[in-house]
Parts: sequence; structure tokens; C-alpha cells
Amino acid sequence: MTETSARRDREFMEEALNEARAGLAEGGIPIGSVLVLGDQVVGRGHNRRIQKGNPILHGEMDALQDAGRLRASEYRRSTIYTTLSPCDMCSGAILLYRIPRVVLAENRTFLGAEVLLRSRGVEVDDLDLEEAVDLMRRFIGEHPDVWNEDVGA
Amino acid sequence: MTETSARRDREFMEEALNEARAGLAEGGIPIGSVLVLGDQVVGRGHNRRIQKGNPILHGEMDALQDAGRLRASEYRRSTIYTTLSPCDMCSGAILLYRIPRVVLAENRTFLGAEVLLRSRGVEVDDLDLEEAVDLMRRFIGEHPDVWNEDVGA
Repeated sequence: MTETSARRDREFMEEALNEARAGLAEGGIPIGSVLVLGDQVVGRGHNRRIQKGNPILHGEMDALQDAGRLRASEYRRSTIYTTLSPCDMCSGAILLYRIPRVVLAENRTFLGAEVLLRSRGVEVDDLDLEEAVDLMRRFIGEHPDVWNEDVGA
Repeated sequence: MTETSARRDREFMEEALNEARAGLAEGGIPIGSVLVLGDQVVGRGHNRRIQKGNPILHGEMDALQDAGRLRASEYRRSTIYTTLSPCDMCSGAILLYRIPRVVLAENRTFLGAEVLLRSRGVEVDDLDLEEAVDLMRRFIGEHPDVWNEDVGA
């Protein structure tokens, strides 16, 4: 990875982290995501289980919803940034639309379906950011019940 | 399977088919779903890609959204009925919430992630209903572009 593309990943992840922080400020689970096409964010979102009483609005799903209807050819040259390793549902959405690359901020607090994604040819890059781990550790420590609910546990 | 449980499956599938027909009447993709807990429908929905400009609202996702926040223990004794074999995204949602059983009306017009579901212990039963096949064949014939978009093709 070149220095430029690493910087670009860090910048888009900062936008996903801002989404996570916005979710936390709303009283929600602090997980955010942005969908990027070329150099543009075309969808952004955060987990809204609590805010909307909605079990399908994980951060990645919210970003895909926000992007609206894209062409197959657009998804196939997009990258999805997420502050946490994508669960089975979000990974399934990534596979459905054949998004070729996922960049995640961490998988220490939750390990999603990364093996499945890679087995289907998706590039999965983990930035392993301490601030993302801290955001989740604090939330899980304070709201273990809500967190378990969010991952079907 | 006993005659009673087969009749029960057929009745709940009729509700999912009614959802599919409602979607068609709205100008949408005719795929419907109901989530059943015990003997109660707790969530119902249909594909609303066109109606809402929303790529995550497949029928099953719409039914899960409609059900709202359930306990893990509730998902684990639920059954999801869907008029079409569940795609990667919807199968991922089923895996996330560990819904133990999926009943589908057909997989002739589209074969979803049934192998993955079964490999993770989900019971998948196909009622193979001609009327569900007809509903999809007619729609796909008239709107192949929208249908391709819906399955990321």
C-alpha cells in the first residue's frame, strides 16, 4: 500500500468514526460506516438500533441505505469503511452487491464474517485503530445487554 | 413433517405471498416475507427497493425491520417465511439473529445462500409453489433491469 492510499483510508475512516461518534451522541451504539466511490463518500450512516428501534440498521446497512440505489458497476468499484468488523448481515450485503473491498477500524471487540468475505474474494483491510477499540470497549462495558442484542447473542 | 405443520407452513406462506402481491400492486418487486414466533406473525414486509429507493429493503429485511427489536431468545424460536430463496444479505441477517428455520416458496427463479444457511445449522424448507414462481417469472420478464439490480447483477 502506498503512503497516499494509506492516508486516504485513514481519512475515510475518520468519516466513519465521526458517524460512530454521532451515534454515541444520540444514545446509540457507536459504529459508523461510509461507502466510497472513487474519491467521494456516496453513503454514510451509523448503527441506529436504539434510535429507530431497528434491528437491521447496523452502520454498514445504514450507509448502504443512505447511498440509495446504485448501479452494479458502481458497487463493484466502491469501498466500504466501517469502524467495526462486519457481522454476518453486513457481510452478506457486501457480498450481495459485490463490494470488492472492506476497510475496518478494528476487530478486537468483535470479529465478524471476515473469513467468509475473503473466501468470496473480498479484500478486507484492518486499520486496527486504538480509538475505535476504546469507543466500543467503553460502550460494551456500560451497555452489555444492548451490545449482545446487536450481535444476536 | 406432520399434516398440521405442513398446513401451518402453507398458511404463513400465504401471508408472505400476500405481502409479495401488495408489493407488486405498489409497482414493486413481488417478494414478501413474514417472521413468525409461536403461532403469531410478529413482522411482515415486502421488497421496497422501488417504493423507497432503498437497496437494503428486501422482503426478509423489511419483515425483520417491521418486527423491531426482539430478544435473542425470541429470534431463536422463530421461523422466517419468504416467497423467494434468501440472498446473501437476507441469509446473513438470518445467521446474525440465529433464526433456526427458513421456509421459502421457491428457488427456481433465484437460488440464494441456502448452502451457507444449512452449513450453519439453519433448517431450510422449500415449498416449491408454482404461484410464487409465476409471480417472479412475470416480473423478471417485464423488468429484467430492476431484477438484476436487486440481486447485484
